[in-house]
Amino acid sequence: MKFVKLASENFKPMKKTVTAEILAIGDELLYGQIQDTNSLWISHELDKIGVRVVRRTTVGDNRQDMLHAFHAAEKTADVVLITGGLGPTADDLTKPVLAAYFDCGIELVPEALESVRGFFERRGRELTDTNKLQAHLPTKCTYVPNEVGTAPGMWFEEKGTVWMSMPGVPHEMKKLMTDFVLPKLKAMYDLPVIYHRLVKTVGIGESWLSDLIKDWELSLPTHVRLAYLPSLGEVKLRLTAFGDSQAYVEAAVEDQLEKVHPLISKYIYGYDKISLQEAVGQILLAKGKTVAFAESCSGGYISHLITSIPGSSAYFQGAIVPYHNDFKSNLLGVSPDTLKTFGAVSEQTVIEMANSVKTKFAADYGIASSGIAGPDGGTPDKPVGTVWIACSHPKGVAVKLLQLTTDRTINIHLTAISALNLLRMSILELTD
Amino acid sequence: MKFVKLASENFKPMKKTVTAEILAIGDELLYGQIQDTNSLWISHELDKIGVRVVRRTTVGDNRQDMLHAFHAAEKTADVVLITGGLGPTADDLTKPVLAAYFDCGIELVPEALESVRGFFERRGRELTDTNKLQAHLPTKCTYVPNEVGTAPGMWFEEKGTVWMSMPGVPHEMKKLMTDFVLPKLKAMYDLPVIYHRLVKTVGIGESWLSDLIKDWELSLPTHVRLAYLPSLGEVKLRLTAFGDSQAYVEAAVEDQLEKVHPLISKYIYGYDKISLQEAVGQILLAKGKTVAFAESCSGGYISHLITSIPGSSAYFQGAIVPYHNDFKSNLLGVSPDTLKTFGAVSEQTVIEMANSVKTKFAADYGIASSGIAGPDGGTPDKPVGTVWIACSHPKGVAVKLLQLTTDRTINIHLTAISALNLLRMSILELTD
Repeated sequence: MKFVKLASENFKPMKKTVTAEILAIGDELLYGQIQDTNSLWISHELDKIGVRVVRRTTVGDNRQDMLHAFHAAEKTADVVLITGGLGPTADDLTKPVLAAYFDCGIELVPEALESVRGFFERRGRELTDTNKLQAHLPTKCTYVPNEVGTAPGMWFEEKGTVWMSMPGVPHEMKKLMTDFVLPKLKAMYDLPVIYHRLVKTVGIGESWLSDLIKDWELSLPTHVRLAYLPSLGEVKLRLTAFGDSQAYVEAAVEDQLEKVHPLISKYIYGYDKISLQEAVGQILLAKGKTVAFAESCSGGYISHLITSIPGSSAYFQGAIVPYHNDFKSNLLGVSPDTLKTFGAVSEQTVIEMANSVKTKFAADYGIASSGIAGPDGGTPDKPVGTVWIACSHPKGVAVKLLQLTTDRTINIHLTAISALNLLRMSILELTD
Repeated sequence: MKFVKLASENFKPMKKTVTAEILAIGDELLYGQIQDTNSLWISHELDKIGVRVVRRTTVGDNRQDMLHAFHAAEKTADVVLITGGLGPTADDLTKPVLAAYFDCGIELVPEALESVRGFFERRGRELTDTNKLQAHLPTKCTYVPNEVGTAPGMWFEEKGTVWMSMPGVPHEMKKLMTDFVLPKLKAMYDLPVIYHRLVKTVGIGESWLSDLIKDWELSLPTHVRLAYLPSLGEVKLRLTAFGDSQAYVEAAVEDQLEKVHPLISKYIYGYDKISLQEAVGQILLAKGKTVAFAESCSGGYISHLITSIPGSSAYFQGAIVPYHNDFKSNLLGVSPDTLKTFGAVSEQTVIEMANSVKTKFAADYGIASSGIAGPDGGTPDKPVGTVWIACSHPKGVAVKLLQLTTDRTINIHLTAISALNLLRMSILELTD
């Protein structure tokens, strides 16, 4: 056993691209009872240090499936990171299966026993025999102390592959990764530098976006890769560069960002982690302007999005949700004639709503929505998915007709995204 | 091509346990940029119909890795469900790699083209050449229409394994699974009988709930299993029975539901798929009552939850979100003295808000929230997470102080859940 000196001090960097597989173990993951947030977090952390995750696999608490996954991982990856299956109960199999896979025994590790004993002592609890089993480890592993739990980390170096087995409890795994695994991998390998940027767009579909930038896309150098990441109402472009130095990859990506920006500038609301509501909030804050909403078919969702951002009270005055038609006139002051002549779902009504809510809340911008969210309430003239949105701004009113889907949830979401984008474009004085 | 008759009409059930592998495809998953919620949802749905998920695998947009994953899946599972990699752009490879794997060509499917064309027509947009590519499919697949997006579903039956390829966009995948894949699998295989019921509770924590039902839990027969599924503000109890006949498993579970109900009845808002907002809506509808909201710290989220339910216009009158304090008096009519003496976050203010919004909207119930959502704005007296909620009802006002967390998102969510529960308890005349 090698509990003091890590063999990897003599490890040689093998190749430029270091690949990793993430193995998550546990029946509860396969049966859909809990979300595997560990694999996402590990992916993200490995990506940041330039280790390339090539596969993520989840198997249950089953000996054969685990052995099969270990074999497959060894063939695929330089680094195999395993989470889960380390509890003290009989259904947790990671430890015995790792011992079988590496063809070694399992022995008590005195340091590990001290660590488990200390963990229980600090909580005023006595050690049971089941707890003590946590300190028995495969003889080929390097013991890695887990300071925030009882299941130790186990590090193996076998046939040119490194393995780390960690508990499935997220904060225990994260501490082992942060304190031990990530620094260790950075020290062991000569890792490439990877740099990502996300360009976030709204108001244009994936294929139209792709048409606008196709010449640029074809001209991308091989070390910069582009991916389209569409979601409901938005499309993100991900630019990735690989190289030897941080300066080089950053320059490569930033250079391309400068080239693509003018082609689609009016659709770009921000970069990287920012959300549309956060971007709109920043614009309002920067310009010292305020906004209020009159939300009929969006039912409070635009207000929810805006107020999900800390500090939104600086620019969000408030909202009225006049769900029952009476309150479109009573509370908002839409003319009963307008409602009678054109209906609640009309250009005229939504314009009056936007103007009125702007005035009522003494705001610089007033946003209004009125439409048929569905699934019922459609007519031949105004089918489900017919939505009017308006933005009353200092120079007038911008108004837009949306023809959405038959799905209520999607319609509410798309109405909100479109209304926030109409607000963004109105403030920035952009046109469709 | 077999676009009309599914080959599986002649498929034979092969064995009692039907196994599945879920394959998620996309670099963005491996790089940790987005959470793979699809695999969790699919796992859960397959579990419910008795199909056993034995592995979940994620690979990138890479031909070799995808082919390798397809081979491994075929060896492991009876059913292979694939999500992602179906966009119209060049980085999406699922379609060509499936064609290569099944050794067939790719051809235009006229029905699929009509579907894509219709999708764009309904949005008043023209089809681009890139859009048209969505309608070219591997000749060995059965085309499965995607009614809510442009990337079609593709069903293959090859060498005793069934394959379904679906878009990675969650709502598109869910619709294909619900409308086509799950009914199809149930019809094809002789699946074991599993029966689940969910008991949905609110207003009580997991350990208190567990104390109330522990004697019942210990008396459960071995063929009925209990799981606690806690989520933010709610705890679900899942009862599962396994057996040979539907009648037997249903009786086993229903019998236990009858026993547990009286122990925790006031916390139970519903069963199975119903959400708290839907349950509250049903109570309002049944009693012919209406509600209005005055949402300060919840910022429109309660309105959003209520209006996410179809038909909510029958009982939801509307809401005012007086985010800036001025509008708590101007629009809602809270007395300036109350605001000055007790502050916006106070029992007195929230009571006036609830009474006032009830009157303004001519509703039977008025709900109000006022609090410090955070992360900033706390004081020693009223730290972040201090929230008052009130329900003005025909016989008076119920009011409650919540002491929540330092996390804004969690605080908004818990405020809404607690307010809806206060409304539920007020209507049903239940007390804490």
